[in-house]
Amino acid sequence: MSVLKSKIKVALIQFASGMPDKAVNFKNCRKFVAEAMRQEPGTSLVVLPECFNSTYAASEFRKNAEVIEQSSPSVKFLSDLARDYKVTLVGGTIPELEPASNNVYNTCLIFDKTGQLIGRHRKVHLFDVDIPGGIRFKESDSLTGGDTSTTIDTPHGKFGVGVCYDMRFPELATVSARRGAFAMIYPSAFNTTTGPLHWHLLARARSVDNELYTMLCSPARVPGSGYQAYGHSLVVDPQGNIIAEAGQGEEIIYAELDPEKIDMMRNMIPVTRQTRFDVYHDVSTDAK
Amino acid sequence: MSVLKSKIKVALIQFASGMPDKAVNFKNCRKFVAEAMRQEPGTSLVVLPECFNSTYAASEFRKNAEVIEQSSPSVKFLSDLARDYKVTLVGGTIPELEPASNNVYNTCLIFDKTGQLIGRHRKVHLFDVDIPGGIRFKESDSLTGGDTSTTIDTPHGKFGVGVCYDMRFPELATVSARRGAFAMIYPSAFNTTTGPLHWHLLARARSVDNELYTMLCSPARVPGSGYQAYGHSLVVDPQGNIIAEAGQGEEIIYAELDPEKIDMMRNMIPVTRQTRFDVYHDVSTDAK
Repeated sequence: MSVLKSKIKVALIQFASGMPDKAVNFKNCRKFVAEAMRQEPGTSLVVLPECFNSTYAASEFRKNAEVIEQSSPSVKFLSDLARDYKVTLVGGTIPELEPASNNVYNTCLIFDKTGQLIGRHRKVHLFDVDIPGGIRFKESDSLTGGDTSTTIDTPHGKFGVGVCYDMRFPELATVSARRGAFAMIYPSAFNTTTGPLHWHLLARARSVDNELYTMLCSPARVPGSGYQAYGHSLVVDPQGNIIAEAGQGEEIIYAELDPEKIDMMRNMIPVTRQTRFDVYHDVSTDAK
Repeated sequence: MSVLKSKIKVALIQFASGMPDKAVNFKNCRKFVAEAMRQEPGTSLVVLPECFNSTYAASEFRKNAEVIEQSSPSVKFLSDLARDYKVTLVGGTIPELEPASNNVYNTCLIFDKTGQLIGRHRKVHLFDVDIPGGIRFKESDSLTGGDTSTTIDTPHGKFGVGVCYDMRFPELATVSARRGAFAMIYPSAFNTTTGPLHWHLLARARSVDNELYTMLCSPARVPGSGYQAYGHSLVVDPQGNIIAEAGQGEEIIYAELDPEKIDMMRNMIPVTRQTRFDVYHDVSTDAK
C-alpha cells in the first residue's frame, strides 16, 4: 500500500497575509479558503502561508504571540475553518507564546477536518542571515527554535512539516520520508533575494531525494510592505516536476496528489530501498 | 581559513571513454589531458569520467577488472598521467577486482601530483533501475558496493568522492562536507532518461545543501554505443550556479574554484553552522 492512501486534492492559499490587524488576516484567509472550496470541491488538504495571521517582523512576534489553547483567537479561527470546510488544515504559522518558558516560537498548527488540533511544528532552524548588499534578518533575536521534527498522521497518510528556513536542512524531510510521509509541507516566506536563488531548487531537491511531494506556501508579496515575500507557492511531484506554481500576488494554487506517482518513482529509481545504513546512520531512527 | 586553501583551476575530461580496447581509452585520455594542460596551464585538479578505461556494461566489468597494484595497466597509466602533468587526478572509475573476496567494484582512484595513489572510492550505491518503457540496468548482478564514504586530503584541501548513483544519496556529500571538503566530485554516467530528469538538479542540490563545489564528469555520448551516456559534465559553485557545462560530445570543461565563494555563501546563509544536532544525528560523526 502506498504511503498516500488515495488521490487527494490540495489547495495552497497564497494570500496577502501579514496585515497588522489579525481580524483582517482572518477575514481574508477565510474568503480565500471559501473561494478554493468553491473552485475545487472535494479539496481535502489546505495549506496557509508562514506568519498567516500577523506581520513577519522580529519586533512584532512577541506582541502577536498567542498561547496554544482553544480560546486563543488564531487557534479558534483555524479550528473553525478546518471544521467548516471539512479539510485537513496546515495552518501556516503564528507566533506562539509558551507561558512556562516565556519563549516565543514560529509555530505551524495542524487541524483535522473536525477542527481538532492534531499536531504542531515549531520552526527548528531560525533564519539568521546577513547578505552584504542584500537582506539582514536575525530571527533568533526574538524567537526560540523548536526541538523536534514533525510528522503528522492523517486519514490520507502522513506528511512532514517544516517552516521556511527548515527546508534548507535536508534532515527534517529525510526523517519524515523514512517515517512514511507522502509529502513535506513548508509554510514559508523566502524573500526576493533568496527566493530567486534557491526556492525552486530546494523544493525539487527535497522531492527527488525523498521521492515524495513537496509543497511550499508563501504569503503574497504586498507592494510597500516591510517584508517582501517571494511568493511563488509551489507543488512539486515525487519526480521533481513543478505541477503548480503561483506568481507573486494573491493566488490559490491547486494540485492533485496521486499515490501512483510516488510508487512509480520509488520503483523506477529505488533510492528509498537502496540506502546504505551500514555506511551512514539512518537519522530517522533517533531524530526527535 | 577556508576549506579551500587557494584558488585552483580544474579540468573535467568528457571524452569518448568506454571503448572495448583499454589501450585506445588510455591514448585518448592522455591526448585530452595534454590538450587541457595546453589550454589552461596551471590546472591543478583533473577529473575523468566513470568507467574511463572500458565499456560500461554489466557483462564487461569482471572481464576488465584489475587488481589495484602498481603494475596494473590502469593504475600505472593514471599514476604516470598525474605525475607527468603534476596534477591531482580523480581517475574516473575502473572495474576493480579484489583478489581475497573475488568481488568486483566500480572504483575511483585518486593520485597526487607525484603519481602517488592517495585514495580510492568504491561506488557505494549500486544502480539497479527499471524504468517501464525506459532503461533497465542492474549493477548489483555484477558488482559489489563499497562500504565507506570517501574524503580525500590534498594540499588544496579536502574533497569528497562519490560515483554516479551515489549522488542520489545526500549522506555521502553531507559527510564529506562536514569533514571539511571544498567539493564533491562524482565521476558519473547518467543515461539519456535520468540525465534530463535529474542531473543538474542533483548537482545543484548537493552544492547548495552543503555550500561547496560539485563536479560531475561524464563520458561523452558515442552514437551507436551500447550505453548512451548523458554527457553534460558540470561544475556547480557553492551558491548552486552552474559555472561550466559540457554538451553531449567530447569536450573539456574548465573552472576556477575560489575559496571566497565558499566562505561568502557560508557567511550569507549559514546553514553549515545552524544545524541542529540536538534534533537529528550528525551523520558525519560515525559514517564509515
